[in-house]
Amino acid sequence: VSLGPAGPEGRPTVAFQGEPGAYSEDAVWVAFPQAEPVPCERLGDAFAAVSEGRTAFGLVPVENSQAGSINETYELLLASDRLRILAEVVVPVDHALLGVPGARIEDVRTVSSHPQALAQCRAFLDRLGVEVVPALDTAGAARRVAEAGRPEHAAVAGERAGRMLGLTVLAARIQDEAWNATKFAVIGEPGRGPDPGFGRPEKTSVAFAVADRPGSLYRCLQPFAERGINLTKLESRPRPGAPFEYRFYVDVAAPLDDPGVAAALDEVREHTASLRVLGSYPIVPT
Amino acid sequence: VSLGPAGPEGRPTVAFQGEPGAYSEDAVWVAFPQAEPVPCERLGDAFAAVSEGRTAFGLVPVENSQAGSINETYELLLASDRLRILAEVVVPVDHALLGVPGARIEDVRTVSSHPQALAQCRAFLDRLGVEVVPALDTAGAARRVAEAGRPEHAAVAGERAGRMLGLTVLAARIQDEAWNATKFAVIGEPGRGPDPGFGRPEKTSVAFAVADRPGSLYRCLQPFAERGINLTKLESRPRPGAPFEYRFYVDVAAPLDDPGVAAALDEVREHTASLRVLGSYPIVPT
Repeated sequence: VSLGPAGPEGRPTVAFQGEPGAYSEDAVWVAFPQAEPVPCERLGDAFAAVSEGRTAFGLVPVENSQAGSINETYELLLASDRLRILAEVVVPVDHALLGVPGARIEDVRTVSSHPQALAQCRAFLDRLGVEVVPALDTAGAARRVAEAGRPEHAAVAGERAGRMLGLTVLAARIQDEAWNATKFAVIGEPGRGPDPGFGRPEKTSVAFAVADRPGSLYRCLQPFAERGINLTKLESRPRPGAPFEYRFYVDVAAPLDDPGVAAALDEVREHTASLRVLGSYPIVPT
Repeated sequence: VSLGPAGPEGRPTVAFQGEPGAYSEDAVWVAFPQAEPVPCERLGDAFAAVSEGRTAFGLVPVENSQAGSINETYELLLASDRLRILAEVVVPVDHALLGVPGARIEDVRTVSSHPQALAQCRAFLDRLGVEVVPALDTAGAARRVAEAGRPEHAAVAGERAGRMLGLTVLAARIQDEAWNATKFAVIGEPGRGPDPGFGRPEKTSVAFAVADRPGSLYRCLQPFAERGINLTKLESRPRPGAPFEYRFYVDVAAPLDDPGVAAALDEVREHTASLRVLGSYPIVPT
């Protein structure tokens, strides 16, 4: 798909990974009620669509409340010179059991979805006593149930995917943990294309590497603590191919143009050669 | 399966999640060359087997070099009063393309595996131009290829799974990133059952919650930095149901009986009511 940065009627195009009806598309609608969502097969395709200017923005998953950080997103952000996080969107992930119209829940024999969604609904599916069938994504599993048109086949996906495909909600909010949410990032090239209109930045995400030495991470956190700046995420990852170094991902609860944040980051740079600002951005209310 | 803590000929029983041939079973053989591995369908089943005394130990994944931390393992460790990490084992994860005997790589039309393994071999599978078919686990995908017995069906799994099933390695080490490894934990009840004989502890894993206030995490790290104690993992997770608190997982590069570690943990306890030691343990050489 190549719509260019502005889609039909000048609406901003937004690349996401998945099929129409995917949870990532839910996040597109929250951040851009007027958007033209552009489905991409892979996460890397969504990044490429934005960096090559084929879409104005991208919407990519950053962290799930149950599965944790999406490392592929962080790797792709670090690999890009130009793309930054422009906003954060937290979207509830409520799984539904979707069947063909007229099917009853007692007809269902097989339930298909991505293994992670199946795992998040384990208690419900156990009680139902059905065979689970893995799929590459939730919305695609729902589409295949709609195509097959048989009452014994159901899928776990979002209710919106079910509505788009004409499927019936046989059971709603079937995940084991009532609160299941995914944090998404709007990505784009700062200053290019339409103003997304999200307002003033509130948070700053940075990545840096530190040597595997006592106190080296502590010295990178001290500049924030001394200035009373809160950190809302901190995660270490072994650096691929560099077994004695760690990479840290840190979210700072203040914008980059806060004088304290700017001074703190200058101090952190004295301890690491690799500090990268992934974005300074607002949180889109949901 | 219920073998009790000692299996045939007194060998220690070790629960793992997956089918025979799974990567978790590779880790069992590294940690316990004389073990009787006990396959469990789910990670929670492996924890239950150990805590109910049906097996002597468990071997569970903690972190993958590409996908990051396995949060379900940490949640299950925190939910258990008695189970601790007794040792750490890092096992290389080399994916192989496995086909039926006599098949040639050019015969292959579909390749089945867990979506994460398929994603880790994306470049190879793209070049091959095959249809990918998701499965619930790698060893199970290989088993179904062996059962189907058709040259056009192949699976991505470990070479050992292939040998056990009589499959042929059509291509070895097909993952995109040459270095792909998973860190596993031996879990058990300290002091119960046979001595696993791993030697003296080198590392300590702790979990604690901190309030979402400036400097609160920093104050929890200060006691380690002041004593020159290195941290090798640090990860924040939102606490389910407690949106203004974070839970931190920290690995300390020293044993719990190190006087500096004990004093540092006492100081950390002043800042958090919830500190839990998940284990103090040696690293099994591989």
